[in-house]
Amino acid sequence: MKKYNFYSGPAILPPEVLAQASSAVLELDHIGLSLIEISHRSKEFQAVVDETIHLIRELLQLSPEHQVLFLQGGASMQFCQVPYNLLDNGEKAAYLDIGAWSKKAIKEARLFGNVEIIGSSADKNYSYLPKHYTIPADAKYFHLTTNETIHGTQMRHIPESPVPMVGDMSSDIFSRVLDFNRFDMIYAGAQKNMGPSGATLVVVKESLLGRVKRPIPTMLDYRSHIKDGSLHNTPCTFAIYVCMLTLRWLKAQGGVAAIEKYNEEKAARLYAEIDRNPLLQAVVSGEDRSRMNVCWVLKDAAHDEAFSNLAKEAGCIGIKGHRSVGGFRASIYNAMPMEGIDTLVEVMQSFEKKNG
Amino acid sequence: MKKYNFYSGPAILPPEVLAQASSAVLELDHIGLSLIEISHRSKEFQAVVDETIHLIRELLQLSPEHQVLFLQGGASMQFCQVPYNLLDNGEKAAYLDIGAWSKKAIKEARLFGNVEIIGSSADKNYSYLPKHYTIPADAKYFHLTTNETIHGTQMRHIPESPVPMVGDMSSDIFSRVLDFNRFDMIYAGAQKNMGPSGATLVVVKESLLGRVKRPIPTMLDYRSHIKDGSLHNTPCTFAIYVCMLTLRWLKAQGGVAAIEKYNEEKAARLYAEIDRNPLLQAVVSGEDRSRMNVCWVLKDAAHDEAFSNLAKEAGCIGIKGHRSVGGFRASIYNAMPMEGIDTLVEVMQSFEKKNG
Repeated sequence: MKKYNFYSGPAILPPEVLAQASSAVLELDHIGLSLIEISHRSKEFQAVVDETIHLIRELLQLSPEHQVLFLQGGASMQFCQVPYNLLDNGEKAAYLDIGAWSKKAIKEARLFGNVEIIGSSADKNYSYLPKHYTIPADAKYFHLTTNETIHGTQMRHIPESPVPMVGDMSSDIFSRVLDFNRFDMIYAGAQKNMGPSGATLVVVKESLLGRVKRPIPTMLDYRSHIKDGSLHNTPCTFAIYVCMLTLRWLKAQGGVAAIEKYNEEKAARLYAEIDRNPLLQAVVSGEDRSRMNVCWVLKDAAHDEAFSNLAKEAGCIGIKGHRSVGGFRASIYNAMPMEGIDTLVEVMQSFEKKNG
Repeated sequence: MKKYNFYSGPAILPPEVLAQASSAVLELDHIGLSLIEISHRSKEFQAVVDETIHLIRELLQLSPEHQVLFLQGGASMQFCQVPYNLLDNGEKAAYLDIGAWSKKAIKEARLFGNVEIIGSSADKNYSYLPKHYTIPADAKYFHLTTNETIHGTQMRHIPESPVPMVGDMSSDIFSRVLDFNRFDMIYAGAQKNMGPSGATLVVVKESLLGRVKRPIPTMLDYRSHIKDGSLHNTPCTFAIYVCMLTLRWLKAQGGVAAIEKYNEEKAARLYAEIDRNPLLQAVVSGEDRSRMNVCWVLKDAAHDEAFSNLAKEAGCIGIKGHRSVGGFRASIYNAMPMEGIDTLVEVMQSFEKKNG
């Protein structure tokens, strides 16, 4: 039976990417060796790094000032690496608190300097986005999470900032058009729209770096990785290669603008059914709704298991909501086809017929 | 033409591991989804983590006190993470300086406390191992590199230590029998004998942790990863899976003791030819020679390109020595078959015939 993968990450990848990755693990481009047993300093792998960086620059339309890096450790490592590099003792950074992931980022930043939380939606379990906040002009940077994977919100509007802006875009990068050059720094774990787990994308303006007084360990200093072109030490070669394949695929789909339209249509169909279906209730309302992570609950939670079973029988995998929200979540990243959405909508309708 | 992969890392893996990994990228165990698109919190991936940890415990015969972790960032990240967790400001750690990798470890440790270099072979470009050194009883720990990948030395004898012992075993773990329980901490990048790049093995006694006063960022604190069973955040799922396959393969070969015998025979054949061949000169002599990374130079370096070409024609890939040593290096990890050694020996003999 065909499976529809709604996992929040590691997440669905295009079938052609999986086929090409599988083939490269056996042998890369007829060189007689596997992708995963060649040196990261071989000319073959350098070509992979070069093409992947080129694709990222092109798809995000980055300015030459922005450096593109592949690191390890995911967004979680960036939670400490950002303030380690950007926030001196006694200095202030402004954070927007929109959910589980920004809370973690705030916790780490407090080890390095002062954090001012300029807006929070903690009062309603992060089911909306704070709107009326002011970014203080004396902050070293302003940190925001553009999409909240767990709570299902997404910032439709990126504010003007008087200070450098740092965005955690782990769960919506490459899914919609933004003016990425308005960000001084962007970071994202690969395992949603960019590839498998094991690579972390960091985009950073070099002019932002070298301003804190504390010594920074070599591996945590972005400048080490800029200097060595992301090959300061051995990266996860497989993950970078699969990012390249995924971004090639995205380019062939028409790039970010084209996939954004498709993503809008997918999200619209799913939210329309949730709003129509008398047994379901969306967790987030209106313009704050994420087009990547769609969260809903059953009005009668006693039916949760029955709904789960219906979904499983239809091949819909990974729709359990995060324990902090409950209910259900469908992560509908770039690679999710419309037929996956339609299948899930049918599950909702069949659930209504049985229990309505 | 059959290729023999002598890269120092990422490095050769057994053909059956590559075949299984390739298949799992298409579909994992008939679940209808790829290995690289399932959640790290799925029951399928938890089974992978559990089996891999079990295999490591079994193959290294670890005591229950030792925790087994998968982290990211390679040994290079451990260079700072070890002192971050173990060495307070003003305290002292003892390091053995046997080459490029220990130098890097020493550089990072100095950011956190005092480093006493108790032995060094820098005077002869690290072509031997220091023998007569004393480990100070007031050090917080003693750090050693059991095999030097670049310089081609390997510690045959692990000293008695009055203080906790921390071993960087990146390039020889799982290649020979040691009493691993004599180490309070072991770390190793996976990409030599354990799997592909993207996973870092850390083995640590929990009693060693929580003794420094400085705050430790969550991702750099080993206790976060112990608490969450290496799933504090999304790991590189592919790399851990391929480690599992590689360790299954190692177990099927008879485990570490059996592979050690094979590794000894491979190294002996290669060194025997280097010592016999009048045109070649081993970089390291006697008992300090590594059985993993065999380094040699041509007595007449003007022939370097000719030798490289002969090797390439015979399918021997990745034998260029590191730029700091020059000459040639054959990395002959567990998965290198004897026929690879024999092919390289033939290259050496044919070089002698042509240029002798």
